[in-house]
Amino acid sequence: MTTAGLEGITAGRSGIATVGKAGAGLTYRGYRIEELAEHSTFEEVAYLLIYNQLPNAQQLSSYKKRLSGLQELPEELRTVLEQIPASAHPMDVLRTGCSVLGTLEPDGQGGRNEAAIADRLIASFGSMLLYWYMFKNRGDRIETQTGEDTISGHFLRLLTQSEPEPLRQRALDVSLILYAEHEFNASTFTARVVTSTLADIYSAVTAAIGALRGPLHGGANEAAMELVSQFESPAVAEKGVLQMLAARRLIMGFGHRVYKNGDPRSGIVKSWASRLAEESGNTDIFDISERIEQVMMREKGMHTNLDFFAATVYHLCGIPTPMFTPVFVISRTSGWAAHVIEQRNDNRLIRPLADYTGPEPRDYVKLEDR
Amino acid sequence: MTTAGLEGITAGRSGIATVGKAGAGLTYRGYRIEELAEHSTFEEVAYLLIYNQLPNAQQLSSYKKRLSGLQELPEELRTVLEQIPASAHPMDVLRTGCSVLGTLEPDGQGGRNEAAIADRLIASFGSMLLYWYMFKNRGDRIETQTGEDTISGHFLRLLTQSEPEPLRQRALDVSLILYAEHEFNASTFTARVVTSTLADIYSAVTAAIGALRGPLHGGANEAAMELVSQFESPAVAEKGVLQMLAARRLIMGFGHRVYKNGDPRSGIVKSWASRLAEESGNTDIFDISERIEQVMMREKGMHTNLDFFAATVYHLCGIPTPMFTPVFVISRTSGWAAHVIEQRNDNRLIRPLADYTGPEPRDYVKLEDR
Repeated sequence: MTTAGLEGITAGRSGIATVGKAGAGLTYRGYRIEELAEHSTFEEVAYLLIYNQLPNAQQLSSYKKRLSGLQELPEELRTVLEQIPASAHPMDVLRTGCSVLGTLEPDGQGGRNEAAIADRLIASFGSMLLYWYMFKNRGDRIETQTGEDTISGHFLRLLTQSEPEPLRQRALDVSLILYAEHEFNASTFTARVVTSTLADIYSAVTAAIGALRGPLHGGANEAAMELVSQFESPAVAEKGVLQMLAARRLIMGFGHRVYKNGDPRSGIVKSWASRLAEESGNTDIFDISERIEQVMMREKGMHTNLDFFAATVYHLCGIPTPMFTPVFVISRTSGWAAHVIEQRNDNRLIRPLADYTGPEPRDYVKLEDR
Repeated sequence: MTTAGLEGITAGRSGIATVGKAGAGLTYRGYRIEELAEHSTFEEVAYLLIYNQLPNAQQLSSYKKRLSGLQELPEELRTVLEQIPASAHPMDVLRTGCSVLGTLEPDGQGGRNEAAIADRLIASFGSMLLYWYMFKNRGDRIETQTGEDTISGHFLRLLTQSEPEPLRQRALDVSLILYAEHEFNASTFTARVVTSTLADIYSAVTAAIGALRGPLHGGANEAAMELVSQFESPAVAEKGVLQMLAARRLIMGFGHRVYKNGDPRSGIVKSWASRLAEESGNTDIFDISERIEQVMMREKGMHTNLDFFAATVYHLCGIPTPMFTPVFVISRTSGWAAHVIEQRNDNRLIRPLADYTGPEPRDYVKLEDR
């Protein structure tokens, strides 16, 4: 008996996050996502995931200082980024940047362990993305050491080349908290399979970025934005979505492999989408999104997942759509690193079997007889 | 109940290879590995895996011509390779090169499908590796369009910058056949998990290279060489291995997750190691390897796997040890591509569950109270 996609199959032990466990909802190391999103910042959450505890004030302050000191890119990496065409998908830019950094600052050398590398990647992925973007789109070789001491502030300053707007920065910060970790999702599981061969952490994160790129995983936030932005009004959206459903087309941003009764992150991200829409005075995208949410619930009984309203949040933060999944990478690197560390601490090669469905053994036919 | 490493768990259907199925041994699309290694060339096997049939003479001739036309590297990729330090692991060079090529020649654009991209990667991975190697070690920007119409010939010409020696070329060719495909091993499974999110094939292959890099997987051939080359004679090797066993150290190149009674590829690769040793008049490495094989069987009842004598073959072909696993990449790309195509044809997101072992839900502690 084969269960396609390992659905419902337990592939290992993990003590990092609960995803829809009875009575627990979503927790990171025991802390409820609702409380983390309300009271924490992304840097505290990254520290919690990577270093296994919430930092105290002094630890947090020195962690933020450390991260802000890791924003610069080596010259070789900048040269590599300049070779990637403007037409490339930004996820491929991060996939490449991570792989190259692994050759310049290798795992296990110079005192670098998984945690140090995770910090470096979290601090510099925004730098890589925007260095490439600004070079290709404006011909500028921007300075990536912004001195901002938050990941959200660093990203927004690089993107806008000006002071981050506080409400947008906090909305982005909360989204990073929500995206940070999610148990054995496809990209994290990829990172664990790679790690199980005892490969380096850059190989694991590079692989995870590739997995997150797909529209059935992280790419869903971009796909949701493409859906929402094609409609002029809630009424047009309702009609359009009904037509898509009739044509049995997949609507991105709805449903989840594990959460059958709704994603606990959805309400949080929706409240931020609503707040940004109101404060900006531009509620079009939010209203269209909310109508699509209602139609999907009414017609299919399907809940939005995190990706759906995250798209509205990022759009209202002024982030270009192709950068939505890269923002997810910056955040999820904290969760991936936690899983790499956990896998290394109790490793066993991940090597399943396949149900063979191919031809029976058959005689070889020599070239001249084919 | 959790089975660590998904051992014995069936993770999906596949019709490409049998690995130790009762009565079948190892077959690629029904053809026995013994016959393929005896009568075929790597190009025929790659075609069989990617295009699902053995080519006839005309198809093979045009396939070889196509592959030899794909050896050149784009200028941007050459510039990227020049940025990677001489100290980098060659696997990281291929991981980066694959990722960069994905930005220059994207999946699904310009009429490129999975098969066309697989051909391009198989034809150009050797070019990437040796271009980087010759630039870093000799300062030469070599021409990578060798015109050789076999993968083994192309690799050896780039490496030696001279006419490939026929016996070495055929030994390398046979090793490529043996390494081409092996069901749901860790790197192939990684490629399938990535593909299951509907990501592009470059993301899948880049990820698979990262997984293959680990010493519990493809890196084992390099680890075997390091083991063998530290001993001066069979007698010293016997003593050394006994000491390692007493110290409970892992001996690479022995045992296999699936094959419990020996790897059907081992005898084939050993016969080539023996033949190369005899013809070269240098049997030291072979004799030491054979003694270690005897000790491991006598002391632990463990069989060599493919990686063990592949190390001797590659060493006698004049290939530097850090290039052993990259050679494996060139070959296995054919198998990875076959699995990407198969996964896409009947896709379901691969997303297992975890057994939660972390803390119970606990109250959030505000920063000022930590």
